[in-house]
Amino acid sequence: MGEFVLNKQLEADTHLVCELQNCSLRLLDDARWPWLVLVPRVAGIEEWHDLSKGQRIMIDDEVARVASALKTMTGCEKINIATIGNMVRQLHIHVIARNEGDANWPGPVWGYGAREPYEPENTASFIEAFKASFS
Amino acid sequence: MGEFVLNKQLEADTHLVCELQNCSLRLLDDARWPWLVLVPRVAGIEEWHDLSKGQRIMIDDEVARVASALKTMTGCEKINIATIGNMVRQLHIHVIARNEGDANWPGPVWGYGAREPYEPENTASFIEAFKASFS
Repeated sequence: MGEFVLNKQLEADTHLVCELQNCSLRLLDDARWPWLVLVPRVAGIEEWHDLSKGQRIMIDDEVARVASALKTMTGCEKINIATIGNMVRQLHIHVIARNEGDANWPGPVWGYGAREPYEPENTASFIEAFKASFS
Repeated sequence: MGEFVLNKQLEADTHLVCELQNCSLRLLDDARWPWLVLVPRVAGIEEWHDLSKGQRIMIDDEVARVASALKTMTGCEKINIATIGNMVRQLHIHVIARNEGDANWPGPVWGYGAREPYEPENTASFIEAFKASFS
């Protein structure tokens, strides 16, 4: 199965926030929504149910911690969590803060309009604020 | 917090497949995609991270078993799993079988076009086939 290597598209579309015990935590480069992506550092896995139970427990713990911190940080109305992977097959989990009136609310974020990259200073301040809420 | 009561909209949009140990497993009444919904029988919970760790482990086990069975049954290309809840706040988890060329592929299923209800005989045959794959 080989070593884990981050998918090139995921790498291109995101900024590293930090490495958790099991996942790379990344910020999707789209300023329309506060949108984090966890990429489990497990090689060759495409489907959530192909993880072992032990892997699922550890990774889900990180997902729940990230979701809770993102809700605290943003004060958002609703957290959306999903693993879809129709385009990028390497397993990754989306955690997104949603609010009434945001782009495409209450519809989904995926496939909606064009990505709006952050200004570099806004990337840094988002990551700093998230880490303060996460730790 | 009161007793768990299934949300009226979820009830109206789905057919009961079976009661699992922790969740009501339901078929979304939309023949465009094989689409199951798990509704944890926990009152007053809207966010995944508001479940206890023990609840998350038990419910995720049911999600993974349902996802695996749905993939086996349908032979689909990709499973999509999500908890969104922007419209119906009662916690529920979507498990959907996706294939190249299906409606809105590779985009998401949520908010796309109009629901296409099953013919009654097709509801029954879907549920029967799923249960055979699940048990």
